[in-house]
Parts: sequence; C-alpha cells; structure tokens
Amino acid sequence: MQGVERLVTLTTDFGEGSPYVAAMKGVILSANPSARLVDLGHTIPPQNVRHAAFFLATCLPYFPARAIHVIVIDPGVGTDRALLHIEAAGHQLLAPDNGCWTLAAAKLTDTPTVRRLSEPRFWRHPVSATFHGRDILAPVAAYLSLGGDPNELGNPVTEWFRHPLPPATLEPRRLAGEVVFVDPFGNLLTNIPGDAFLALASGPVRVVVGAREVTRVVRTYGEADRGTLVALVSSSGLLEVAVAEGNAARELGVATGTPVVVSALHNERPDASLAN
Amino acid sequence: MQGVERLVTLTTDFGEGSPYVAAMKGVILSANPSARLVDLGHTIPPQNVRHAAFFLATCLPYFPARAIHVIVIDPGVGTDRALLHIEAAGHQLLAPDNGCWTLAAAKLTDTPTVRRLSEPRFWRHPVSATFHGRDILAPVAAYLSLGGDPNELGNPVTEWFRHPLPPATLEPRRLAGEVVFVDPFGNLLTNIPGDAFLALASGPVRVVVGAREVTRVVRTYGEADRGTLVALVSSSGLLEVAVAEGNAARELGVATGTPVVVSALHNERPDASLAN
Amino acid sequence: MQGVERLVTLTTDFGEGSPYVAAMKGVILSANPSARLVDLGHTIPPQNVRHAAFFLATCLPYFPARAIHVIVIDPGVGTDRALLHIEAAGHQLLAPDNGCWTLAAAKLTDTPTVRRLSEPRFWRHPVSATFHGRDILAPVAAYLSLGGDPNELGNPVTEWFRHPLPPATLEPRRLAGEVVFVDPFGNLLTNIPGDAFLALASGPVRVVVGAREVTRVVRTYGEADRGTLVALVSSSGLLEVAVAEGNAARELGVATGTPVVVSALHNERPDASLAN
Repeated sequence: MQGVERLVTLTTDFGEGSPYVAAMKGVILSANPSARLVDLGHTIPPQNVRHAAFFLATCLPYFPARAIHVIVIDPGVGTDRALLHIEAAGHQLLAPDNGCWTLAAAKLTDTPTVRRLSEPRFWRHPVSATFHGRDILAPVAAYLSLGGDPNELGNPVTEWFRHPLPPATLEPRRLAGEVVFVDPFGNLLTNIPGDAFLALASGPVRVVVGAREVTRVVRTYGEADRGTLVALVSSSGLLEVAVAEGNAARELGVATGTPVVVSALHNERPDASLAN
Repeated sequence: MQGVERLVTLTTDFGEGSPYVAAMKGVILSANPSARLVDLGHTIPPQNVRHAAFFLATCLPYFPARAIHVIVIDPGVGTDRALLHIEAAGHQLLAPDNGCWTLAAAKLTDTPTVRRLSEPRFWRHPVSATFHGRDILAPVAAYLSLGGDPNELGNPVTEWFRHPLPPATLEPRRLAGEVVFVDPFGNLLTNIPGDAFLALASGPVRVVVGAREVTRVVRTYGEADRGTLVALVSSSGLLEVAVAEGNAARELGVATGTPVVVSALHNERPDASLAN
Repeated sequence: MQGVERLVTLTTDFGEGSPYVAAMKGVILSANPSARLVDLGHTIPPQNVRHAAFFLATCLPYFPARAIHVIVIDPGVGTDRALLHIEAAGHQLLAPDNGCWTLAAAKLTDTPTVRRLSEPRFWRHPVSATFHGRDILAPVAAYLSLGGDPNELGNPVTEWFRHPLPPATLEPRRLAGEVVFVDPFGNLLTNIPGDAFLALASGPVRVVVGAREVTRVVRTYGEADRGTLVALVSSSGLLEVAVAEGNAARELGVATGTPVVVSALHNERPDASLAN
C-alpha cells in the first residue's frame, strides 16, 4: 500500500453499526491507505456534547503526540458553527466548535493553537449539508496524516466554545458537586477531586448522592460485598460512586447532574476544629 | 510480521461482542498477519438482507479500489445458496448470493464480474455447516489479500440475486416512495431521490410519512427548533425525514416500508401548471 | 512511525463506547505506535467470567501464534488477586487470575507457562486501584509487543483458577448438560459434545431445553422453516439449540444454566439395546 503510517482516531455519536462511521473510514483510507485507524467510541449519546467532553478527557491524553483525533459530535452540522483544527502538545484534533474537545485538550496544554477550517480545497465535494464528518473532517484528517501542513487549513482563532466540568464547592468540612458522567458499568463519576475527597475521608464522612447515602468508602470495588454502595477515587482521579458488582446508575435511578455531597460526619472536638 | 498489507473490511450481522467476528479476524490474520482489518459494522439486524444492502451502499463506495470486503449476512448458510466473489471497479467483495451486495456494487459499476466460490482448496476444513464466514469467506479473503488470483476461486456466473431499492413513483406534482432505512439516529431514509424532491420543493409542498405531516423542509438539522419534524436531502442524496435533535423512528413509531408522499401543496395557477 | 508491528488483541467487559477501552489503546500505542490493535469484544457482560471464558475459547485459538491477547474481565481489580502472563503454544495472554483464560488456553496446549506479574517497573505509575487494565496490562502488553522478555515480568506459578465447562453426563442413551453460552443471535450453546449428539441422533431422539421440546434435528438453520426450534452441531462443535431465523434465548426465555437433555426416543428392540 502507498501512504503514510499515522494514527487517526475516530470518536462519534453515530452509534454502533452506523454506515456513516464506515463511510468516514473509507474516505480517509482512500486518501491514505496506510492511515492507522483507531476507534475510540461511537456510542456517545446523540448530540451529547457534555458526555463527549468527559469521554475524550478520559482517554485522549493517553495517546501519543502526533496522533490525529477526529471528533464528530456535531448537532450544529450545516449551520454556521465553525469546524476547528486544534494542536495541543503535539496532538492534532479536528472537531466542531461546540466545546466537546476543550476538557481533553486542557489535560494536554494550557495553550492550544486553534484554527478555523476555511479552505475548501482540502474538502470532499460536493459538501453535504448534514455530514461534514465525511466531507470535511475525514479528508482533512487524511491530508494531515500524509504530513500536510495545518497552517494551510485556515486562520488561527482566539475564541471558541469551552465545556469545562461544572465547578464543585470545596469547603474544609463539605464538598458539594454533581455526577458528571455515567460510565458503561453504571458507575457515577463526579466533579469532586479525588484528593479533596481523600483528605476529608481520612476522618468519618457522610457521602450522599441525590437522596441516597453511600454505605462505605473503599479503595477498590472488590473490598465491599456485592451490592454495597461505595465511594472511591476513580481511575481518572475523581470521586466515584459505585455499586460493588452492580450498576449504580440503574439501581439509584440517577443520571448526570445529580448532586453529590461529602460532609464531615460529626461535630469535631474543639481542638480538631481549630486544626481546620 | 510477514504478509502483505491490504485492506480487508468486515460487515456482519453477528452483533457487537460476537466471538464469531473475532474468530474471522483470527482466521484472516493467521493466513496474513499484515492484513489491515477494518470493521464496517456488525449490528446489521440479524438476517436483514435489505438493511445490509442499504448499509453497504452508504459506505462501501467510499473505500479505495483494491480493498477486499467480506460480507456475512447469510440466512441461507449451509443450504445450496452460492457464495460469490465480485469484482466491481477494482473492489473485491465476498458475499452470499442473496442480494446484500448488489446495491453497493451498482454504485461502483454496471458490469461486475461475479464468480461462484467452488474451490474447496482455498477453504478451512472441516467446513462447518453454520459458519461459512469463518471457514470459507475469511480464508478466501486472506488468500486474496496475499495477492491470490480471483480466477482460481471458481467459475464466472451471470445470474445472481439482486436487491434494488423499491422503485419510487416520480410524477410532476407527486413523489411517492417509502422508508428504506432507519439510521442509528432514527432518521428515516427514503427511496425518493433528493434532486426530484428539491425540484418539487422549490414550490410549496406537503410531505407525509405514514399518517404524519412533516413540518418543515430544511437544508440541515440545525435550521429547525429541537423536536421539529423536518424533511431534507440526506448525505447520500435521498429524501430524509428527521426530528431535529430527536429520533424520528421512535417518535413517529415508523419503520422501513412506511409510505412517504411528497405533493405540490395547492392548485397552481394555469400558467404555472403549463410550465410542468 | 517507530515501533514493532505486532498483533495485540483486546477483550474487555467495559462495554461499547467505553472511554476505558480507548484509554488502554492509547497507553499501548504510546509505548509502541506500530502495535496492531484488534478488538475481539468489549460487551462481555460485566464481571461475567464464565461468559468471557466461553467467548475466548470460541475465537482466540484462531489467531496466529505470537499474538498478544489482553483480557480485562476483572471483578477483583485492586484486591490481592494476581495478574498473569500466560504462554500457550506461542500465544501470549495477559489476564487476571480468575479463570477467564483457561478454557481458551486448553484449546492451544495442555502445558501453559504461567507467570504472576510482579515487576512494577513495567507498569504505569501511579497504579490506579480500579483500572489495572490501563496501568498494568496495557503497558506490559506494549513491552511484549516490542519484543520484551516475558521472563522479566515475574516468577512462574503452578496454581491458578480454572474455569472449565461444567461437565455433561454422557450415557449411551441419554446426554444431559446445560446451556453454557448465549450468542448474540440468541442461539443456545451447550456443553454436550457435537459428536456424542450426532451419534445418538443417528436414531430418533428427543431434545429438551428447560421445559421445551426441540422440534427438529438439522444440519444448518436454513433447513427448517422460520420459527422452528432446532438442534444442531454448532460451529464450535457443541450441541446448539436455535430458532430458525429467530432468537431462541428470547423466545424460550432461557439463559445459561438451563438443563438440556437428549434421550433416545423409544424403547429399542432387545437386539438393538444389546448393540449399545
């Protein structure tokens, strides 16, 4: 085969079994048959930019620099929303300007270089009004995979949508946040930093998710009996609530946005509160 | 690794998480460890040849010539249905003779060369009665990926099953067709050509899907408010009915086969009707 | 790209669309950008070691020797369960010590070499308590894919958990077993060997699954009318019960563990029973 070996990852909300993912693969491989395609995930809930943002922050930073990441969660396709090329610590991202990429990029660098794709000569024509993944992002990814110069793609921009985690309230004896992601096991990831949680949980704490109190603080799922509602630090360093060998989202009936509060359990002795 | 780099795509109705897809990958990679496997989709509804036909027509033409496409939607496995090798404008397809491949091939060429696989020396033995994907198609794909000669696989045939789109009725003031594919977003793809629709929709039209009237004609989803039922030209050039940021199939409760009618809305003035 | 081309397969219970699978891919490709990743399956039911064992036995033996297989079905993550490197007839497996790998390895060799991973210098640090797939197995797989020496990973062990098929009772006129796997078509795979079934079914037999009697013995699905409950030998050589063009698991409401009994149908003539 001719072409250049280069990692090109694909993340979409097209769903498993979508012919649209397959069409994008075909477009990339037609331009560069040696591109090394890697599926990151195609079951982002449709148009769910927040889910995509957390998903990408959880996996994209582990890839090597020079990888090219194509991200198609694009409710605004065909409108005047921009399509962006982002360079972040050597990674190249292609994504709509809706904030889906900013949480991941922030783990790589504070100073991404962002361009608006504006040069139709790198696109597939005619450009469909509803499928810019196939007609713009895929051919641009192929161009980059062949060593193409990102500077040709369009001019730098300094404004773009951001999608940060909602801020958590971190007080000395109380941490208040929310569920920001439900993983495929049904585990509840929150926006409360794991180290803040561990510091507070060195003493007795109460952890409440929605209206339900968590039974135990553990280091790993296997420490609790099956079915126990546990709090722990997730593999991405955040407070996580899980049911041991179960599905917390389903059993608690909670989704993203549900409040999570960690509070120091009882009144401390005077000297202890002084220590705070 | 030894072997020859060559794209081999896989499309099946085996379902995500099927060990049978994985077994086929193993058979191909055992014969040619350098084959470049690309998953197109494995969630074709079981035995749904019509869905497979549309799926493949939507993605397969975007791949480069010389790709080898293995297609296993095979309700007749183990009966006397033939297995075919198809050469279409340089693409090589391997598929059962049930019409699943003809819509895609027709986008590539009017004159495919079709052979019936009849030479057991290229197969895996013993050949299971229920899994020709693993025992016949996978080893034949590996043989082709190593540069094997398709002429060795069996004799050409001139008859095969076809699976065209059902014909739409295209009249000057009325287009009548049906839903032929539901994509993973729940968007409804029809067999009405997009250009015929656009020509009629340059004037006021009514679009009806089953018993439901479509609210708006748009160019892209983002032009309508969330929840609006819209008609547009799909990325594959067909009339499509969608719910903006929603799932039309679920909200309308419709599936493939549902009638779709586009009609010019009111009686035209006499001079206008003359123009038709 | 730099690195070494080498097949690395991934099997997890993380679910489609899991950012954790994507994170593992990133870790492997960061260490060896030329590793050739192959997804076997990510929809093993969560923590279902038995399902994983059958899944792997159905597909892993078809891969070429020298492939590296990473298996993350790991309900005991973070506890003192061991992580293992297994060498089986040239295949290398990385898996938790819960038996998920033993049925597959037994198809390759009777004498696997098993080591306990104990050398943290090959791991990613800090090691999360809940995601050893990313922090231990993925970097070890990358090390092996670059030609690393398995002997460095840890000392050999001689004891490990095993997960054999439950034994079937094979009598001259009666075979009694159970459903051990439900495939994505809803076909019911049993632990009754296909050859024992065929020998008995050369005469009239009754096949009962749970409380339901199977209608026909066939060689392949297509021999029976749609909806017929059939018994046949599966592509992996076991007795299988299926509904022609249907989903047996759903239509019968049965799952793994359901008893399956094959019995010679009527009293044989005296001379015939002597022949047994």
